Amino acid sequence: MKIGILGYGNLGRGVEAAVRQNADVELAVIFTRRNPEDLNVLTENVPVVNVSEIEQWKDKIDVLILCGGSATDLPVQTPKYAQMFNVIDSFDTHAKIPEHFEHVDKSAKDSGHVAIISVGWDPGLFSLNRMYANAILPDGKDYTFWGRGVSQGHSDAIRRIEGVKDARQYTVPVEKALNAVRNGETPDLSVREKHTRECYVVIEGGADAKRIEHEIVTMPNYFDQYDTTVHFISQEELDKNHKGIPHGGFVIRNGKTGLNKEKNHTIEFSLKLDSNPEFTSSVLIAFARAAYKLNKEGQSGCKTIFDIAPAYLSSKTPEELRKTML
Amino acid sequence: MKIGILGYGNLGRGVEAAVRQNADVELAVIFTRRNPEDLNVLTENVPVVNVSEIEQWKDKIDVLILCGGSATDLPVQTPKYAQMFNVIDSFDTHAKIPEHFEHVDKSAKDSGHVAIISVGWDPGLFSLNRMYANAILPDGKDYTFWGRGVSQGHSDAIRRIEGVKDARQYTVPVEKALNAVRNGETPDLSVREKHTRECYVVIEGGADAKRIEHEIVTMPNYFDQYDTTVHFISQEELDKNHKGIPHGGFVIRNGKTGLNKEKNHTIEFSLKLDSNPEFTSSVLIAFARAAYKLNKEGQSGCKTIFDIAPAYLSSKTPEELRKTML
Repeated sequence: MKIGILGYGNLGRGVEAAVRQNADVELAVIFTRRNPEDLNVLTENVPVVNVSEIEQWKDKIDVLILCGGSATDLPVQTPKYAQMFNVIDSFDTHAKIPEHFEHVDKSAKDSGHVAIISVGWDPGLFSLNRMYANAILPDGKDYTFWGRGVSQGHSDAIRRIEGVKDARQYTVPVEKALNAVRNGETPDLSVREKHTRECYVVIEGGADAKRIEHEIVTMPNYFDQYDTTVHFISQEELDKNHKGIPHGGFVIRNGKTGLNKEKNHTIEFSLKLDSNPEFTSSVLIAFARAAYKLNKEGQSGCKTIFDIAPAYLSSKTPEELRKTML
Repeated sequence: MKIGILGYGNLGRGVEAAVRQNADVELAVIFTRRNPEDLNVLTENVPVVNVSEIEQWKDKIDVLILCGGSATDLPVQTPKYAQMFNVIDSFDTHAKIPEHFEHVDKSAKDSGHVAIISVGWDPGLFSLNRMYANAILPDGKDYTFWGRGVSQGHSDAIRRIEGVKDARQYTVPVEKALNAVRNGETPDLSVREKHTRECYVVIEGGADAKRIEHEIVTMPNYFDQYDTTVHFISQEELDKNHKGIPHGGFVIRNGKTGLNKEKNHTIEFSLKLDSNPEFTSSVLIAFARAAYKLNKEGQSGCKTIFDIAPAYLSSKTPEELRKTML
C-alpha cells in the first residue's frame, strides 16, 4: 500500500515514523503547503511536493493521510481530496462531525473513493469502546477521563496571555473520582470533580506573575471550571522537563444485568501514551489499510470507525486472525 | 428482533435476563433437551419447546442463540442449526476455532444464514482488543491476565477428586506482574508468575484432607504449574460466600513508536464482572443484533467478532452513533 501524507507537522512526522513499522506500507510522497525545499524530512528518497501539484499523484498513491488541523484545514481538505484519493483524517471537532461526514460522503461517493474521518483515539478508540460498551450493557453509565497529558489547546490559550513566553498545560484526572468509577460506583461528577489542570509557564522578564496567574485560572471555559495550579518556571526547565506530548485517559462503563439488575459490571479501556501525535499516527495507518482494502472491494463513501470491521485494520488474513488472535 | 434460546443453563438464563434490557429484542421461544414441563423459566408466556420440534420454528425467529457447551454441544449444534436459523455461539476452545469455523461456514452459506461464532469476552472482547492493539502498535508485546474470577473447569476438576463434595476455584492475577506490565514494562513471564490459584473445598466426612490437597496442587496442567492455595471450608460457608460466578481480567499491549522506537505506549482493556454468564449473555445479544442486520442485508456464512463492523451491534442508527458516540 502506497500512502501520501499531506501536512508535515507533528502528526505528519508521526505517520512518517509509523510507516516503518508496517511492512505492507510504503511512504510514496509528502505534500506540503510550504516550499518543499524548506522541509527536512526524515525518510530518504521520498519526494516532497507542493500541494498545488497533488492532482498529478491521482493514480500513484492508494491512500492520502490528511495531517492538518480540524479548525480550518480538514473541513476543506477532506471533501476536496476525497475527489481524488482514498483519504483518512483525524477530524476532532465532535459537534461538527455530522456536517463534516455529509460533505465528505458526497464527495467520496461521487468519485468512488473511501474516506474515513475522525480517526485517532478521541474521537477514535475511545468512541469505539464507548460504543461497544453501550451496545453490550444498555443499562449503565459512561465516564471518560483524560490525562495525565498535554492539552495543546490549553497550552496555546496560556501562550496568548500578554507577558507569557511559553507554556505547557497538563490535564489530570482526579484520582478519587477515577477510583470510585473503577470500583463500580456511578457518581454524578461535575467538571471540577473529574479533572484538574496543571500549568507550567515561562514569563517575559518584568511581566506580572500575579496578573498572569489570575488571567489563567479565571479564563472562561478553559480554566474557570477547574482547580488549576500554575507553576512559573524557566525556559530551560520547560525545555528539559516538559517538551514531550504525552497523553492518555480512561473510558469506563458501569452497567447492570440480571432480572433485578443485581449484578454489576465494569468495562474499562485506557491508554497511556508517551506521544499523542505518534500514537494517533499509528491509528491512522491502521485505518488507511482498511480504506485501501474496502476500496479494492468496490466500496465508496464516508465511513467512521463504527463502520469498519476490525479485521480490515490488520495486515493478517482472516484465517491468521482466527488462528492467532481469537 | 425475535430470538430463540437453545439450552437453559447459566448462559441461557443470562440471555433471558439480558433480553429485558434491549427494547428491540423479544424472547420468542426457549428450546431444551429436557422435558419442557421440568423447566421453571423466568419469563411469563414464553413457549418452552423440546428441541426435537425446533424445525417448526424455522421462520418464526430471527436469531437462535446457542447456549450449550464447547466440548460436545456446539461442535454439533452450530453447524446443524445454521441450516435453519441465523445463529450465535460462544464456542471457546481456542485451538479448534478454525475447524469449527469451516463447518459452520459451509452450513450457513448453503442455507443463506449468518452465523457468528466464539462470541463472549475471551474469545470475544479480549480477542477484539488484542487485534485492534496489534494492528495499531505492530511493534509490541501482549499480555492477558484473567481474574480474579471463578474457573468452572478448575472447580470441576477439583470436584472429581475422591472425597471432595464441592469446590470453587478462583484464578487470580499476580499483582506484581500485572503492575509491571501496566507500567509499560515488557517482562517475560512464566505461567507461575502470571496467576495464582485459590481453591475453596468442601470434603466428605472422614476424607483425608492432606491427600486431597496434594492431589489438587500436583494435578497436571490444571494446578502443577501454579502456586495454589487450598482452603477447606464447610458447605455452608461455600454456599454463603462462593456461590457467585464473578470473573474478569486484563488485556494489555505495550508497544513502541518513533524513528528510534523511543516512545512507549500502553493500551489496556479490562473487565470486572459480577456474573460471567450474564455478561457473556449480554455480548451474545449484541452480536445477535448484528447477525440479524447482516442477514437482512443479504449476507450469509460464518463470521467472528473480527468481521463485524461495530455499528451493527448497536440499536442506534449510524447517524445517531456519529452524533452521540463519536
